[in-house]
Amino acid sequence: MPRITFLPSNISVETAPGAPLADAARAAGVSIDLPCGGKGTCGKCRVRVVEGSISHNDSLPAIPGEAGVVQACASLATDVHTVIEVLDSRESALLAMDGAGTAEALPEHVPCDGPLAELFRATVPPPRPADGLSDMDRTMRALAKDGAPGVGALSLDTLRSLAAELRAEDGAVAAVATRDGGAARVIRVSRKSAVRGSYGLAVDLGTTTVAALLVDLETGKPLSSRSAYNGQIRFGQDVISRINYAGRPGGLDELAAAARGSINGIAASLASSAGIRPEEICAAVVSGNTVMTHLLLGLPPGHIRLDPYTPTLLPVPALTAGEAGISIHPAAALRISPCVGSYVGGDITAGLLASGIPHNGDGVSLFLDVGTNGELVVGGSEFLMTCACSAGPAFEGGGIECGMRAAPGAIERVAVNQASGAPSCAVLGGAAPRGICGSGMISLVAGLFRAGWLDRSGRLARGRQSTHVVERGRRASYLLFEDPADGREVAVSESDIGNFVRAKAAIYAACTLVLAQLGLDFTDLVRVYIAGGFGKFLDLEDAVTVGLLPDIPRDRFVYLGNASLLGSYRALVSGKERALQDALAARMTYMDPGADPAYMDHYTAALFLPHTDARRFPSVQLGK
Amino acid sequence: MPRITFLPSNISVETAPGAPLADAARAAGVSIDLPCGGKGTCGKCRVRVVEGSISHNDSLPAIPGEAGVVQACASLATDVHTVIEVLDSRESALLAMDGAGTAEALPEHVPCDGPLAELFRATVPPPRPADGLSDMDRTMRALAKDGAPGVGALSLDTLRSLAAELRAEDGAVAAVATRDGGAARVIRVSRKSAVRGSYGLAVDLGTTTVAALLVDLETGKPLSSRSAYNGQIRFGQDVISRINYAGRPGGLDELAAAARGSINGIAASLASSAGIRPEEICAAVVSGNTVMTHLLLGLPPGHIRLDPYTPTLLPVPALTAGEAGISIHPAAALRISPCVGSYVGGDITAGLLASGIPHNGDGVSLFLDVGTNGELVVGGSEFLMTCACSAGPAFEGGGIECGMRAAPGAIERVAVNQASGAPSCAVLGGAAPRGICGSGMISLVAGLFRAGWLDRSGRLARGRQSTHVVERGRRASYLLFEDPADGREVAVSESDIGNFVRAKAAIYAACTLVLAQLGLDFTDLVRVYIAGGFGKFLDLEDAVTVGLLPDIPRDRFVYLGNASLLGSYRALVSGKERALQDALAARMTYMDPGADPAYMDHYTAALFLPHTDARRFPSVQLGK
Repeated sequence: MPRITFLPSNISVETAPGAPLADAARAAGVSIDLPCGGKGTCGKCRVRVVEGSISHNDSLPAIPGEAGVVQACASLATDVHTVIEVLDSRESALLAMDGAGTAEALPEHVPCDGPLAELFRATVPPPRPADGLSDMDRTMRALAKDGAPGVGALSLDTLRSLAAELRAEDGAVAAVATRDGGAARVIRVSRKSAVRGSYGLAVDLGTTTVAALLVDLETGKPLSSRSAYNGQIRFGQDVISRINYAGRPGGLDELAAAARGSINGIAASLASSAGIRPEEICAAVVSGNTVMTHLLLGLPPGHIRLDPYTPTLLPVPALTAGEAGISIHPAAALRISPCVGSYVGGDITAGLLASGIPHNGDGVSLFLDVGTNGELVVGGSEFLMTCACSAGPAFEGGGIECGMRAAPGAIERVAVNQASGAPSCAVLGGAAPRGICGSGMISLVAGLFRAGWLDRSGRLARGRQSTHVVERGRRASYLLFEDPADGREVAVSESDIGNFVRAKAAIYAACTLVLAQLGLDFTDLVRVYIAGGFGKFLDLEDAVTVGLLPDIPRDRFVYLGNASLLGSYRALVSGKERALQDALAARMTYMDPGADPAYMDHYTAALFLPHTDARRFPSVQLGK
Repeated sequence: MPRITFLPSNISVETAPGAPLADAARAAGVSIDLPCGGKGTCGKCRVRVVEGSISHNDSLPAIPGEAGVVQACASLATDVHTVIEVLDSRESALLAMDGAGTAEALPEHVPCDGPLAELFRATVPPPRPADGLSDMDRTMRALAKDGAPGVGALSLDTLRSLAAELRAEDGAVAAVATRDGGAARVIRVSRKSAVRGSYGLAVDLGTTTVAALLVDLETGKPLSSRSAYNGQIRFGQDVISRINYAGRPGGLDELAAAARGSINGIAASLASSAGIRPEEICAAVVSGNTVMTHLLLGLPPGHIRLDPYTPTLLPVPALTAGEAGISIHPAAALRISPCVGSYVGGDITAGLLASGIPHNGDGVSLFLDVGTNGELVVGGSEFLMTCACSAGPAFEGGGIECGMRAAPGAIERVAVNQASGAPSCAVLGGAAPRGICGSGMISLVAGLFRAGWLDRSGRLARGRQSTHVVERGRRASYLLFEDPADGREVAVSESDIGNFVRAKAAIYAACTLVLAQLGLDFTDLVRVYIAGGFGKFLDLEDAVTVGLLPDIPRDRFVYLGNASLLGSYRALVSGKERALQDALAARMTYMDPGADPAYMDHYTAALFLPHTDARRFPSVQLGK
């Protein structure tokens, strides 16, 4: 059997003749990123052949490159002994650096109104001879008397410790009951002094970023918040790559484990910062797009991208954390926000809760969530029409060579000197620049365009003299930062800018299409709600300048921030919000923009800065 | 640290100074029976000290015996190196011999009427573009159309394979929905051709014996039946010993594992004999007394025997097999029959279903279950009064030196020659006699009594000449069988007969007491239903002769056989029977005979054959 040694870790593995290097690496526990899902198209899995020879898998494309450097996904082990050097893996390095994520600002306090898990304190009377009541009977009666309505049963784990807990403090106990889906269940009964409170977790499971909020379920108060990369990144940057990867043997399990791992890591870190054990978290609401929802639960996502695009589920049955492998209290209620269609998921139904659109009495609003995918909803209390467009991960720092999420070290705003072309960068966390995030890209492209360093088609002004515009091969790049110590650069190429422009065009075109189908225009909108991780850093004028947002009165825009996380939080603390979310998921009309031939025209027209039709952007001053 | 080597297995273990030998043996994985639960009272855990010395634990009694032979539970390791020989352990040998149990006769077929798990066949229409329906939505609609009412959700496991199963045979599927406690859950959806049927398991979890029945849940037809020793026997023969053992560190877990192991072993064996996989069993009903119910579920039973005798639960919440560690389909509905009091459990509420007493229009009946404990119910459709008496395991072959359960090799009937005192034995399974079972003991005692070889106080006729009555020390024994090859004996001593008489007296006294409290007599009973494993082998005249059953017209007696198993079967196949069982458990009046001073008088009067008051047994011809 061929033997492969991977450097620099120096791990060897025996493999079947003809096995792809990527599979051998996985078997050896060596991390190689496959952003395209192992389809041979992205070239990010390149490795150097140090010893021995490999053969190319002819069923996959070959990307030309440096001699001796091959794609791990498309290369087959054939030699008796091959030594392979794993080249630096940007995604793995970012994931490693991210650790348990970064703390985030806390949202406004939403008071509890029927939380998903509720804490009760009661005094259970002592047992009496021949009253025919078991410990469980007396406990249920005491809880019902003290306000826990419709509690159906005690979990087996609770029953196992019930006799001891009841007798520890003369029947003074605290109990936690969960409420989602049917009868409430009591999942914890403890002697009163052992219970400090009841805690819940709200989670936005994004394709690129996972964000979570720890909540005190007695008051509804947010305690701490944290976000980190989704650990699935190493298997593919966008949902299509992940769907591809899920089709490989064992791939779905790896993706599910990575999603669970990301949530569990953040949950542990949040619990630790609040001084509680993760088992004290008794409820969680997770909102993600339809593919993320499937991958988290280990449901095969393949049919989501195969005609007729049918997911296994849209509304999700009530689950326990234990069933889904979430490491909080194993019997905790786990609510997954309901999805609407293959590409409009629970993050959008959660986001709508945060926007308040379903309550808006009159007028039509636009809800726009710009993440790795772009999703939008047009409507109000009367109707809700929704669609998605595949924007790519440019707004979350993906698809950009030096892109990164909005974490310390990310350039989040750029001013460009009109004369010299020199940038002034604002960097998150006061650190040295490590990359550029989505809001930074918008700011950069708008700044270059306004200063005349970028034309309407996305080409840098090569003719003008600047040390920051450098030509490399056929493409030019804009140099944002160079570390004087080691020469490390943060630069954005025309290719990166092209990805960015395609992403903003896809979103603008989808909005135009939905409005047109309703016989409306952007000017008819009473509000535009902007969701997405970059929301809080976004400069409105910049977003209009690049043609991402429409050129309408600025006071109609409302930033929501991470609306998926905010909506998860609302659903966690309020039974009414959960019922509202289920109802609106059921009444939303889902459309597929790709099915309408007009979409391509709208898209092509939007591939300029700000747009082919300059009359749509009267307030934007065009560059040369 | 002291080191102990156990012979004959020659396993050594390091132990803390002063640790009991029994604990060291358990740590070493060496099986030593503790029928009394390690309280130092039964002497069954005796071992021989071959090398080194031990000290006696002064907090436990010392039972005098052979030099060098000590009780493992009461002996402490003190020497640097001790070598211990484990003497033959009867219970372990029986358990080992029992294997997966013995096949049993099948009960009468009860047709399905709302089984606990129901099989549906349906055709799920193919997905269509833009209909907004997920695979789950279409499946639920198709099932509802094809007759599955109120199905609330699909289990996560089912969802994981749903996309593939729906598309395997053009949507032709079979689904299993479980129904206990609240909304039904779909726990299995498979391509139609992969499903042969739906199966259920009815279980009687007895203190000594576990019996189970595999049922076809499409028709209700019983497929095969099997019984075996309860694997908990090695930790104690009766419920009190087991409660004691459960109080030791790790003891409860061991007992729970043993009960699960016994059920799982029988389930695997039944599945194998029917040619199915255990995972195809989608529902189970388990009926056991209150202590067995607690031990199976890992609930601490200690308070059941501590004033005021309060169990953790009486009615049991709906569970899944997976939660309770039963190795059938992990999401299978597991119904545990509701208990009524600390010593009247689910075996009795199940038994009442089998008797039909709750349907009896008029007249008062007696339901009598003689197992390791004796339980009885007096009543009809108007009222049900119940109590228990601790009979000891004599009727299941326990507490008798050569006792065994009704399995091959058990002497189940004995005729005694009046002149010579020689026995003629009927042996189960046509094997050589290995021991004597409960019905054999009744037959033997009645035969000896009628033939004048046993007096009214339970003493053998030592004065008469017989090679079968042998005096050993202060007590005489009756020799039933001696193997000519190896001299192995099956004998019953006066001490065994004393245990038997105390057992029958306890039951008769409890019946007398309950009837007296209601102002009734045995002659007022329209029916006497006899439950218990020995039922089918029991000779009515023998049972009246020894004073176990009252001397009333014989046509009022009805043998139910294993009523707990039969009732479990009825609850498994019928929703109405489950509702009836829950209702009758709620309305039964539980009394504690020990709380009434009259009980002791009734008991003492019944310690003779058949009774002190001969007028109560006019048809019994008294011996000399």
